[in-house]
Amino acid sequence: VTRVLTGAILVALSLFVIGLAPAWLFWLLLSLTAVLASTELARVLDGMERPAWPWLATAGVLGTMGSFVAGGPPLSLVLTALLIAVFLRTVVSRSPPNEASSRVASSLLFALYLGLTFGHIGALHGAGGGSFRGQGPLLFAIASVYVGDIAAFYGGRAFGRRRLAPSVSPGKTWEGAACGVIGAVVAAWTCERLSVVDYGASGAAVLGVLVGVAGIAGDLAESMLKRAGRIKDSGALLPGHGGVLDRLDSLLFAAPVVYWADRVLASAL
Amino acid sequence: VTRVLTGAILVALSLFVIGLAPAWLFWLLLSLTAVLASTELARVLDGMERPAWPWLATAGVLGTMGSFVAGGPPLSLVLTALLIAVFLRTVVSRSPPNEASSRVASSLLFALYLGLTFGHIGALHGAGGGSFRGQGPLLFAIASVYVGDIAAFYGGRAFGRRRLAPSVSPGKTWEGAACGVIGAVVAAWTCERLSVVDYGASGAAVLGVLVGVAGIAGDLAESMLKRAGRIKDSGALLPGHGGVLDRLDSLLFAAPVVYWADRVLASAL
Repeated sequence: VTRVLTGAILVALSLFVIGLAPAWLFWLLLSLTAVLASTELARVLDGMERPAWPWLATAGVLGTMGSFVAGGPPLSLVLTALLIAVFLRTVVSRSPPNEASSRVASSLLFALYLGLTFGHIGALHGAGGGSFRGQGPLLFAIASVYVGDIAAFYGGRAFGRRRLAPSVSPGKTWEGAACGVIGAVVAAWTCERLSVVDYGASGAAVLGVLVGVAGIAGDLAESMLKRAGRIKDSGALLPGHGGVLDRLDSLLFAAPVVYWADRVLASAL
Repeated sequence: VTRVLTGAILVALSLFVIGLAPAWLFWLLLSLTAVLASTELARVLDGMERPAWPWLATAGVLGTMGSFVAGGPPLSLVLTALLIAVFLRTVVSRSPPNEASSRVASSLLFALYLGLTFGHIGALHGAGGGSFRGQGPLLFAIASVYVGDIAAFYGGRAFGRRRLAPSVSPGKTWEGAACGVIGAVVAAWTCERLSVVDYGASGAAVLGVLVGVAGIAGDLAESMLKRAGRIKDSGALLPGHGGVLDRLDSLLFAAPVVYWADRVLASAL
Protein backbone atom coordinates (compact mmCIF):
# COMPACT_ATOMS: atom_id res chain seq x y z
CA VAL A 1 0.00 0.00 0.00
CA THR A 2 2.83 2.37 0.89
CA ARG A 3 4.39 1.51 -2.45
CA VAL A 4 1.23 2.30 -4.45
CA LEU A 5 0.55 5.48 -2.48
CA THR A 6 4.12 6.77 -2.89
CA GLY A 7 3.91 5.86 -6.57
CA ALA A 8 0.70 7.80 -7.07
CA ILE A 9 2.12 10.86 -5.31
CA LEU A 10 5.29 10.67 -7.42
CA VAL A 11 3.36 10.41 -10.67
CA ALA A 12 1.08 13.34 -9.77
CA LEU A 13 4.01 15.48 -8.63
CA SER A 14 6.11 14.67 -11.70
CA LEU A 15 3.29 15.44 -14.13
CA PHE A 16 2.59 18.69 -12.31
CA VAL A 17 6.23 19.78 -12.46
CA ILE A 18 6.73 18.67 -16.06
CA GLY A 19 3.50 20.16 -17.35
CA LEU A 20 3.16 23.39 -15.39
CA ALA A 21 6.49 24.46 -13.88
CA PRO A 22 8.55 26.98 -15.84
CA ALA A 23 11.75 25.69 -17.42
CA TRP A 24 14.05 27.08 -14.70
CA LEU A 25 12.07 25.35 -11.94
CA PHE A 26 12.10 22.08 -13.85
CA TRP A 27 15.89 22.29 -14.27
CA LEU A 28 16.30 23.19 -10.59
CA LEU A 29 14.29 20.18 -9.41
CA LEU A 30 16.04 17.94 -11.96
CA SER A 31 19.41 19.14 -10.66
CA LEU A 32 18.41 18.40 -7.06
CA THR A 33 17.31 14.94 -8.15
CA ALA A 34 20.64 14.44 -9.91
CA VAL A 35 22.49 15.46 -6.73
CA LEU A 36 20.48 12.89 -4.75
CA ALA A 37 21.28 10.28 -7.40
CA SER A 38 24.96 11.24 -7.11
CA THR A 39 25.00 10.61 -3.37
CA GLU A 40 23.39 7.23 -4.04
CA LEU A 41 25.99 6.37 -6.70
CA ALA A 42 28.72 7.44 -4.28
CA ARG A 43 27.36 4.94 -1.73
CA VAL A 44 27.32 2.21 -4.36
CA LEU A 45 30.93 2.89 -5.37
CA ASP A 46 31.98 2.99 -1.70
CA GLY A 47 30.46 -0.48 -1.40
CA MET A 48 32.68 -1.61 -4.30
CA GLU A 49 35.70 -0.15 -2.48
CA ARG A 50 36.20 2.13 -5.44
CA PRO A 51 35.22 5.47 -3.90
CA ALA A 52 35.07 8.68 -5.90
CA TRP A 53 35.70 12.22 -4.70
CA PRO A 54 32.01 12.94 -4.14
CA TRP A 55 32.15 16.75 -4.37
CA LEU A 56 34.17 16.77 -7.56
CA ALA A 57 32.02 13.99 -9.02
CA THR A 58 28.80 15.88 -8.21
CA ALA A 59 30.24 19.06 -9.71
CA GLY A 60 30.94 17.01 -12.84
CA VAL A 61 27.30 15.86 -12.96
CA LEU A 62 25.96 19.40 -12.63
CA GLY A 63 28.49 20.82 -15.11
CA THR A 64 27.63 18.15 -17.64
CA MET A 65 23.91 18.86 -17.17
CA GLY A 66 24.67 22.56 -17.61
CA SER A 67 26.00 21.91 -21.09
CA PHE A 68 22.48 20.77 -22.07
CA VAL A 69 20.91 24.07 -21.03
CA ALA A 70 20.51 26.53 -23.91
CA GLY A 71 23.50 28.89 -23.79
CA GLY A 72 25.43 26.60 -21.46
CA PRO A 73 29.16 25.87 -21.83
CA PRO A 74 30.18 23.29 -24.48
CA LEU A 75 30.25 19.69 -23.23
CA SER A 76 33.82 19.26 -24.53
CA LEU A 77 34.98 22.13 -22.30
CA VAL A 78 33.12 20.90 -19.22
CA LEU A 79 34.41 17.34 -19.48
CA THR A 80 38.00 18.35 -20.23
CA ALA A 81 38.03 20.74 -17.26
CA LEU A 82 36.64 17.92 -15.11
CA LEU A 83 39.27 15.48 -16.43
CA ILE A 84 42.15 17.81 -15.58
CA ALA A 85 40.61 18.75 -12.21
CA VAL A 86 40.21 15.11 -11.21
CA PHE A 87 43.82 14.31 -12.11
CA LEU A 88 45.07 17.41 -10.29
CA ARG A 89 43.05 16.27 -7.27
CA THR A 90 45.08 13.04 -7.19
CA VAL A 91 48.31 15.05 -7.06
CA VAL A 92 47.02 17.10 -4.13
CA SER A 93 45.66 14.07 -2.28
CA ARG A 94 48.99 12.18 -2.38
CA SER A 95 47.10 8.88 -2.25
CA PRO A 96 48.97 5.81 -3.48
CA PRO A 97 48.83 5.60 -7.31
CA ASN A 98 46.55 2.59 -7.43
CA GLU A 99 43.94 4.17 -5.18
CA ALA A 100 44.28 7.50 -6.97
CA SER A 101 43.70 5.92 -10.40
CA SER A 102 40.66 4.15 -9.07
CA ARG A 103 39.27 7.42 -7.74
CA VAL A 104 39.87 9.11 -11.09
CA ALA A 105 37.86 6.48 -12.97
CA SER A 106 35.07 6.45 -10.36
CA SER A 107 34.80 10.24 -10.22
CA LEU A 108 34.61 10.53 -14.01
CA LEU A 109 31.91 7.85 -14.17
CA PHE A 110 29.43 10.24 -12.52
CA ALA A 111 29.57 12.77 -15.35
CA LEU A 112 28.82 10.12 -17.95
CA TYR A 113 26.36 7.87 -16.13
CA LEU A 114 24.41 10.65 -14.39
CA GLY A 115 25.41 13.94 -16.05
CA LEU A 116 24.74 12.89 -19.64
CA THR A 117 21.54 11.04 -18.84
CA PHE A 118 19.95 13.67 -16.56
CA GLY A 119 21.12 16.26 -19.11
CA HIS A 120 19.14 14.48 -21.83
CA ILE A 121 16.05 14.40 -19.59
CA GLY A 122 16.42 18.16 -19.24
CA ALA A 123 16.93 18.59 -22.97
CA LEU A 124 13.75 16.62 -23.64
CA HIS A 125 11.79 19.12 -21.55
CA GLY A 126 10.52 21.68 -23.99
CA ALA A 127 12.03 19.87 -26.99
CA GLY A 128 8.68 19.07 -28.61
CA GLY A 129 6.51 20.96 -31.04
CA GLY A 130 3.16 22.64 -30.44
CA SER A 131 1.10 20.16 -28.46
CA PHE A 132 1.51 19.85 -24.69
CA ARG A 133 3.60 23.02 -24.57
CA GLY A 134 6.67 21.17 -25.88
CA GLN A 135 6.54 18.62 -23.08
CA GLY A 136 5.27 15.85 -25.40
CA PRO A 137 8.54 13.97 -25.97
CA LEU A 138 9.36 13.84 -22.24
CA LEU A 139 5.86 12.60 -21.36
CA PHE A 140 6.18 10.06 -24.19
CA ALA A 141 9.48 8.79 -22.75
CA ILE A 142 8.13 8.58 -19.21
CA ALA A 143 4.89 6.85 -20.22
CA SER A 144 6.67 4.29 -22.43
CA VAL A 145 9.32 3.52 -19.82
CA TYR A 146 6.97 3.08 -16.87
CA VAL A 147 4.24 1.17 -18.69
CA GLY A 148 7.08 -1.03 -19.97
CA ASP A 149 8.45 -1.47 -16.43
CA ILE A 150 5.05 -2.48 -15.07
CA ALA A 151 4.37 -4.82 -18.00
CA ALA A 152 7.81 -6.43 -17.50
CA PHE A 153 7.12 -6.98 -13.79
CA TYR A 154 3.67 -8.58 -14.14
CA GLY A 155 4.53 -10.33 -17.42
CA GLY A 156 7.63 -11.84 -15.79
CA ARG A 157 5.56 -13.03 -12.82
CA ALA A 158 3.00 -14.67 -15.09
CA PHE A 159 5.14 -16.15 -17.85
CA GLY A 160 8.77 -15.85 -16.70
CA ARG A 161 10.89 -18.96 -17.25
CA ARG A 162 14.29 -18.28 -18.78
CA ARG A 163 16.50 -15.92 -16.81
CA LEU A 164 17.79 -12.81 -18.57
CA ALA A 165 20.86 -11.93 -16.49
CA PRO A 166 21.15 -14.34 -13.54
CA SER A 167 24.32 -12.88 -12.07
CA VAL A 168 22.95 -9.33 -12.00
CA SER A 169 19.22 -9.51 -11.47
CA PRO A 170 17.99 -13.04 -10.80
CA GLY A 171 14.32 -12.04 -10.88
CA LYS A 172 14.36 -10.88 -14.50
CA THR A 173 13.39 -13.17 -17.35
CA TRP A 174 13.37 -13.00 -21.13
CA GLU A 175 9.58 -13.42 -21.05
CA GLY A 176 9.26 -10.45 -18.69
CA ALA A 177 11.52 -8.39 -20.92
CA ALA A 178 9.39 -9.24 -23.96
CA CYS A 179 6.24 -8.15 -22.08
CA GLY A 180 8.06 -4.94 -21.13
CA VAL A 181 8.86 -4.12 -24.73
CA ILE A 182 5.26 -4.85 -25.77
CA GLY A 183 4.04 -2.60 -22.96
CA ALA A 184 6.37 0.19 -24.08
CA VAL A 185 5.10 -0.13 -27.66
CA VAL A 186 1.47 0.02 -26.54
CA ALA A 187 2.19 3.11 -24.43
CA ALA A 188 4.15 4.73 -27.28
CA TRP A 189 1.38 4.06 -29.74
CA THR A 190 -1.24 5.39 -27.31
CA CYS A 191 0.79 8.60 -26.85
CA GLU A 192 0.85 9.01 -30.62
CA ARG A 193 -2.93 8.50 -30.84
CA LEU A 194 -3.48 11.09 -28.08
CA SER A 195 -1.26 13.55 -30.01
CA VAL A 196 1.28 13.72 -27.17
CA VAL A 197 3.87 13.32 -29.91
CA ASP A 198 3.73 13.42 -33.68
CA TYR A 199 6.00 10.58 -34.81
CA GLY A 200 3.44 8.70 -36.93
CA ALA A 201 2.08 5.27 -35.90
CA SER A 202 5.06 3.31 -37.22
CA GLY A 203 7.60 5.82 -35.87
CA ALA A 204 6.02 5.61 -32.43
CA ALA A 205 5.97 1.80 -32.53
CA VAL A 206 9.65 1.52 -33.53
CA LEU A 207 10.59 4.07 -30.89
CA GLY A 208 8.52 2.10 -28.35
CA VAL A 209 10.68 -0.96 -29.03
CA LEU A 210 13.87 1.09 -28.64
CA VAL A 211 12.63 2.69 -25.42
CA GLY A 212 11.60 -0.71 -24.04
CA VAL A 213 15.05 -2.16 -24.71
CA ALA A 214 16.86 0.93 -23.43
CA GLY A 215 14.73 0.86 -20.27
CA ILE A 216 15.67 -2.76 -19.57
CA ALA A 217 19.34 -1.93 -20.23
CA GLY A 218 19.14 0.99 -17.82
CA ASP A 219 17.54 -1.20 -15.18
CA LEU A 220 20.19 -3.91 -15.59
CA ALA A 221 23.00 -1.33 -15.55
CA GLU A 222 21.92 0.00 -12.18
CA SER A 223 21.28 -3.51 -10.82
CA MET A 224 24.81 -4.47 -11.82
CA LEU A 225 26.31 -1.46 -10.07
CA LYS A 226 24.27 -2.10 -6.91
CA ARG A 227 25.18 -5.77 -6.87
CA ALA A 228 28.86 -4.92 -7.30
CA GLY A 229 28.46 -2.51 -4.39
CA ARG A 230 26.59 -5.14 -2.34
CA ILE A 231 23.65 -2.79 -1.86
CA LYS A 232 20.03 -3.72 -2.37
CA ASP A 233 18.34 -0.36 -2.77
CA SER A 234 20.31 2.66 -3.86
CA GLY A 235 18.55 4.70 -1.18
CA ALA A 236 15.52 4.79 1.10
CA LEU A 237 14.13 8.18 0.18
CA LEU A 238 10.94 6.97 -1.46
CA PRO A 239 8.95 4.60 0.80
CA GLY A 240 8.58 1.25 -0.98
CA HIS A 241 10.49 2.44 -4.03
CA GLY A 242 14.11 2.51 -2.82
CA GLY A 243 16.16 5.49 -3.92
CA VAL A 244 16.00 8.02 -6.68
CA LEU A 245 18.35 5.93 -8.83
CA ASP A 246 16.15 2.84 -8.39
CA ARG A 247 13.17 4.77 -9.66
CA LEU A 248 14.86 6.51 -12.58
CA ASP A 249 17.33 3.87 -13.81
CA SER A 250 15.25 2.85 -16.84
CA LEU A 251 14.50 6.44 -17.83
CA LEU A 252 18.20 7.38 -17.69
CA PHE A 253 18.96 5.26 -20.76
CA ALA A 254 15.57 5.75 -22.46
CA ALA A 255 15.57 9.57 -22.39
CA PRO A 256 18.63 9.96 -24.69
CA VAL A 257 17.10 7.47 -27.13
CA VAL A 258 13.88 9.49 -27.31
CA TYR A 259 15.81 12.76 -27.53
CA TRP A 260 17.90 11.73 -30.54
CA ALA A 261 15.03 9.92 -32.24
CA ASP A 262 12.95 13.08 -31.78
CA ARG A 263 15.71 15.11 -33.41
CA VAL A 264 15.99 12.72 -36.33
CA LEU A 265 12.22 12.52 -36.83
CA ALA A 266 11.85 16.29 -36.49
CA SER A 267 14.42 16.93 -39.19
CA ALA A 268 12.97 14.19 -41.43
CA LEU A 269 9.39 15.54 -41.30
CA VAL B 1 72.41 9.28 -28.90
CA THR B 2 69.48 7.08 -29.94
CA ARG B 3 67.26 9.28 -27.82
CA VAL B 4 68.45 12.51 -29.46
CA LEU B 5 68.29 11.04 -32.97
CA THR B 6 64.76 9.69 -32.47
CA GLY B 7 63.78 13.02 -30.98
CA ALA B 8 65.12 14.94 -33.98
CA ILE B 9 63.33 12.65 -36.42
CA LEU B 10 60.07 12.99 -34.45
CA VAL B 11 60.29 16.77 -34.39
CA ALA B 12 61.03 16.99 -38.14
CA LEU B 13 58.26 14.53 -38.99
CA SER B 14 55.71 16.27 -36.74
CA LEU B 15 56.48 19.71 -38.14
CA PHE B 16 56.24 18.34 -41.68
CA VAL B 17 52.85 16.72 -41.02
CA ILE B 18 51.47 19.70 -39.10
CA GLY B 19 52.71 22.30 -41.54
CA LEU B 20 52.23 20.68 -44.93
CA ALA B 21 49.84 17.73 -44.75
CA PRO B 22 46.21 18.41 -45.67
CA ALA B 23 43.71 18.31 -42.81
CA TRP B 24 42.42 14.80 -43.63
CA LEU B 25 45.95 13.35 -43.52
CA PHE B 26 46.67 15.12 -40.24
CA TRP B 27 43.49 13.69 -38.70
CA LEU B 28 44.31 10.24 -40.08
CA LEU B 29 47.81 10.23 -38.52
CA LEU B 30 46.43 11.70 -35.29
CA SER B 31 43.82 8.92 -35.15
CA LEU B 32 46.48 6.26 -35.67
CA THR B 33 48.51 7.82 -32.87
CA ALA B 34 45.43 7.79 -30.63
CA VAL B 35 44.88 4.11 -31.39
CA LEU B 36 48.50 3.39 -30.40
CA ALA B 37 48.00 5.39 -27.22
CA SER B 38 44.83 3.37 -26.55
CA THR B 39 46.70 0.08 -26.75
CA GLU B 40 49.25 1.52 -24.32
CA LEU B 41 46.53 2.65 -21.91
CA ALA B 42 44.95 -0.80 -22.18
CA ARG B 43 48.27 -2.33 -21.08
CA VAL B 44 48.49 0.09 -18.16
CA LEU B 45 44.95 -0.78 -17.00
CA ASP B 46 45.67 -4.50 -17.39
CA GLY B 47 48.60 -3.95 -15.05
CA MET B 48 46.19 -2.43 -12.50
CA GLU B 49 43.96 -5.48 -12.86
CA ARG B 50 41.22 -3.17 -14.04
CA PRO B 51 41.07 -4.15 -17.72
CA ALA B 52 38.78 -2.41 -20.20
CA TRP B 53 37.15 -3.87 -23.28
CA PRO B 54 39.87 -2.63 -25.61
CA TRP B 55 37.86 -2.60 -28.86
CA LEU B 56 34.94 -0.75 -27.36
CA ALA B 57 37.29 1.63 -25.54
CA THR B 58 39.21 2.40 -28.74
CA ALA B 59 35.95 2.94 -30.62
CA GLY B 60 35.03 5.43 -27.87
CA VAL B 61 38.32 7.29 -28.40
CA LEU B 62 37.82 7.54 -32.16
CA GLY B 63 34.14 8.48 -31.83
CA THR B 64 34.99 11.19 -29.32
CA MET B 65 37.71 12.53 -31.63
CA GLY B 66 35.17 12.44 -34.48
CA SER B 67 32.97 14.89 -32.62
CA PHE B 68 35.80 17.45 -32.92
CA VAL B 69 35.88 17.20 -36.73
CA ALA B 70 33.79 19.85 -38.47
CA GLY B 71 30.43 18.26 -39.30
CA GLY B 72 31.03 15.35 -36.91
CA PRO B 73 28.35 13.95 -34.58
CA PRO B 74 27.66 15.85 -31.34
CA LEU B 75 29.85 14.82 -28.39
CA SER B 76 26.75 14.27 -26.21
CA LEU B 77 25.44 11.70 -28.72
CA VAL B 78 28.79 9.91 -29.06
CA LEU B 79 29.35 9.62 -25.31
CA THR B 80 25.80 8.53 -24.51
CA ALA B 81 25.92 5.86 -27.20
CA LEU B 82 29.25 4.70 -25.76
CA LEU B 83 27.82 4.68 -22.21
CA ILE B 84 24.87 2.49 -23.20
CA ALA B 85 27.05 0.24 -25.39
CA VAL B 86 29.51 -0.35 -22.56
CA PHE B 87 26.74 -1.27 -20.12
CA LEU B 88 25.08 -3.54 -22.69
CA ARG B 89 28.47 -5.21 -23.18
CA THR B 90 28.47 -6.16 -19.48
CA VAL B 91 25.10 -7.86 -19.88
CA VAL B 92 26.36 -9.89 -22.86
CA SER B 93 29.65 -10.78 -21.14
CA ARG B 94 27.94 -12.22 -18.06
CA SER B 95 31.03 -11.36 -15.98
CA PRO B 96 30.52 -11.08 -12.21
CA PRO B 97 29.08 -7.63 -11.28
CA ASN B 98 32.22 -6.37 -9.60
CA GLU B 99 34.44 -7.15 -12.58
CA ALA B 100 31.82 -5.81 -15.00
CA SER B 101 31.55 -2.48 -13.14
CA SER B 102 35.30 -2.17 -13.16
CA ARG B 103 35.39 -2.76 -16.92
CA VAL B 104 32.68 -0.14 -17.45
CA ALA B 105 34.67 2.53 -15.63
CA SER B 106 37.95 1.55 -17.33
CA SER B 107 36.41 1.48 -20.81
CA LEU B 108 34.78 4.89 -20.36
CA LEU B 109 38.08 6.38 -19.12
CA PHE B 110 39.57 6.06 -22.63
CA ALA B 111 37.03 8.40 -24.23
CA LEU B 112 37.75 11.12 -21.67
CA TYR B 113 41.49 10.74 -21.12
CA LEU B 114 42.42 10.05 -24.77
CA GLY B 115 39.39 10.95 -26.91
CA LEU B 116 38.84 14.45 -25.52
CA THR B 117 42.53 15.32 -25.44
CA PHE B 118 43.47 14.01 -28.90
CA GLY B 119 40.27 15.62 -30.16
CA HIS B 120 41.45 19.00 -28.88
CA ILE B 121 44.83 18.51 -30.59
CA GLY B 122 42.92 17.92 -33.82
CA ALA B 123 40.71 20.95 -33.21
CA LEU B 124 43.83 23.11 -32.71
CA HIS B 125 45.03 22.13 -36.18
CA GLY B 126 43.78 24.82 -38.50
CA ALA B 127 42.18 26.78 -35.64
CA GLY B 128 44.42 29.82 -36.05
CA GLY B 129 44.16 32.93 -38.17
CA GLY B 130 46.22 33.96 -41.21
CA SER B 131 49.83 33.24 -40.30
CA PHE B 132 51.28 29.72 -40.59
CA ARG B 133 48.20 28.56 -42.50
CA GLY B 134 46.15 28.32 -39.30
CA GLN B 135 48.66 25.96 -37.67
CA GLY B 136 49.97 28.67 -35.33
CA PRO B 137 48.10 27.68 -32.14
CA LEU B 138 49.11 24.02 -32.44
CA LEU B 139 52.76 24.93 -33.04
CA PHE B 140 52.52 27.33 -30.08
CA ALA B 141 51.20 24.54 -27.83
CA ILE B 142 53.85 22.06 -28.96
CA ALA B 143 56.74 24.53 -28.62
CA SER B 144 55.64 25.71 -25.16
CA VAL B 145 55.09 22.17 -23.87
CA TYR B 146 58.35 20.70 -25.09
CA VAL B 147 60.59 23.63 -24.24
CA GLY B 148 58.90 23.48 -20.81
CA ASP B 149 59.58 19.72 -20.57
CA ILE B 150 63.25 20.18 -21.41
CA ALA B 151 63.64 23.13 -19.04
CA ALA B 152 61.99 21.11 -16.26
CA PHE B 153 64.34 18.19 -16.84
CA TYR B 154 67.60 20.15 -16.83
CA GLY B 155 66.38 22.68 -14.25
CA GLY B 156 65.43 19.82 -11.95
CA ARG B 157 68.83 18.21 -12.41
CA ALA B 158 70.62 21.46 -11.60
CA PHE B 159 68.48 22.92 -8.80
CA GLY B 160 66.05 20.18 -7.73
CA ARG B 161 65.68 19.75 -3.98
CA ARG B 162 62.06 19.47 -2.79
CA ARG B 163 60.09 16.62 -4.33
CA LEU B 164 56.87 17.49 -6.16
CA ALA B 165 54.97 14.19 -6.01
CA PRO B 166 57.14 11.54 -4.39
CA SER B 167 54.64 8.69 -4.60
CA VAL B 168 54.02 9.19 -8.32
CA SER B 169 57.22 10.47 -9.88
CA PRO B 170 60.14 10.57 -7.45
CA GLY B 171 62.45 12.35 -9.90
CA LYS B 172 60.30 15.47 -10.15
CA THR B 173 60.93 18.52 -7.97
CA TRP B 174 59.26 21.86 -7.33
CA GLU B 175 62.41 23.57 -8.62
CA GLY B 176 62.25 21.58 -11.85
CA ALA B 177 58.57 22.41 -12.24
CA ALA B 178 59.33 26.12 -11.79
CA CYS B 179 62.02 25.92 -14.48
CA GLY B 180 59.52 24.14 -16.71
CA VAL B 181 56.96 26.92 -16.34
CA ILE B 182 59.63 29.54 -17.04
CA GLY B 183 60.71 27.59 -20.12
CA ALA B 184 57.12 27.41 -21.34
CA VAL B 185 56.71 31.16 -20.88
CA VAL B 186 59.92 31.89 -22.80
CA ALA B 187 58.80 29.61 -25.64
CA ALA B 188 55.31 31.16 -25.65
CA TRP B 189 56.71 34.67 -25.74
CA THR B 190 59.12 33.72 -28.55
CA CYS B 191 56.23 32.27 -30.58
CA GLU B 192 54.38 35.55 -30.14
CA ARG B 193 57.46 37.54 -31.27
CA LEU B 194 57.80 35.30 -34.36
CA SER B 195 54.10 35.88 -35.17
CA VAL B 196 53.29 32.19 -34.81
CA VAL B 197 50.31 33.40 -32.78
CA ASP B 198 48.75 36.76 -32.16
CA TYR B 199 47.90 36.75 -28.45
CA GLY B 200 49.86 39.87 -27.47
CA ALA B 201 52.95 39.71 -25.24
CA SER B 202 51.03 39.51 -21.96
CA GLY B 203 48.47 37.05 -23.37
CA ALA B 204 51.25 34.77 -24.57
CA ALA B 205 53.05 34.99 -21.21
CA VAL B 206 49.92 34.13 -19.19
CA LEU B 207 49.12 31.29 -21.55
CA GLY B 208 52.72 30.10 -21.23
CA VAL B 209 52.23 29.73 -17.46
CA LEU B 210 48.97 27.84 -17.97
CA VAL B 211 50.54 25.55 -20.58
CA GLY B 212 53.54 24.91 -18.32
CA VAL B 213 51.28 23.91 -15.41
CA ALA B 214 48.96 21.84 -17.62
CA GLY B 215 51.98 20.07 -19.11
CA ILE B 216 53.27 19.11 -15.67
CA ALA B 217 49.79 17.94 -14.68
CA GLY B 218 49.58 15.82 -17.84
CA ASP B 219 52.96 14.32 -17.13
CA LEU B 220 52.05 13.51 -13.52
CA ALA B 221 48.68 12.06 -14.59
CA GLU B 222 50.33 9.58 -16.92
CA SER B 223 53.07 8.78 -14.39
CA MET B 224 50.39 8.00 -11.81
CA LEU B 225 48.55 5.66 -14.17
CA LYS B 226 51.77 3.89 -15.16
CA ARG B 227 52.85 3.51 -11.55
CA ALA B 228 49.42 2.12 -10.62
CA GLY B 229 49.81 -0.32 -13.52
CA ARG B 230 53.38 -1.16 -12.42
CA ILE B 231 54.73 -0.27 -15.86
CA LYS B 232 57.78 1.90 -16.50
CA ASP B 233 57.28 2.98 -20.11
CA SER B 234 53.85 2.96 -21.69
CA GLY B 235 55.38 1.35 -24.78
CA ALA B 236 58.65 0.78 -26.62
CA LEU B 237 57.71 2.15 -30.00
CA LEU B 238 60.04 5.15 -29.99
CA PRO B 239 63.70 4.18 -29.24
CA GLY B 240 64.80 6.03 -26.10
CA HIS B 241 61.44 7.74 -25.67
CA GLY B 242 59.16 4.96 -24.42
CA GLY B 243 55.69 4.88 -25.92
CA VAL B 244 53.41 7.34 -27.65
CA LEU B 245 51.71 8.15 -24.37
CA ASP B 246 55.05 8.89 -22.67
CA ARG B 247 55.88 11.37 -25.40
CA LEU B 248 52.49 13.09 -25.60
CA ASP B 249 51.33 13.08 -21.96
CA SER B 250 52.12 16.76 -21.34
CA LEU B 251 50.57 17.89 -24.61
CA LEU B 252 47.34 16.01 -23.88
CA PHE B 253 46.44 18.41 -21.06
CA ALA B 254 48.09 21.49 -22.60
CA ALA B 255 46.29 21.31 -25.98
CA PRO B 256 42.77 21.87 -24.53
CA VAL B 257 44.09 24.81 -22.49
CA VAL B 258 45.53 26.45 -25.63
CA TYR B 259 42.39 25.64 -27.62
CA TRP B 260 39.98 27.33 -25.21
CA ALA B 261 42.33 30.24 -24.50
CA ASP B 262 42.62 30.74 -28.26
CA ARG B 263 38.84 30.81 -28.55
CA VAL B 264 38.52 33.31 -25.71
CA LEU B 265 41.30 35.55 -27.05
CA ALA B 266 39.95 35.34 -30.62
CA SER B 267 36.50 36.51 -29.51
CA ALA B 268 37.98 39.23 -27.28
CA LEU B 269 40.14 40.79 -30.02
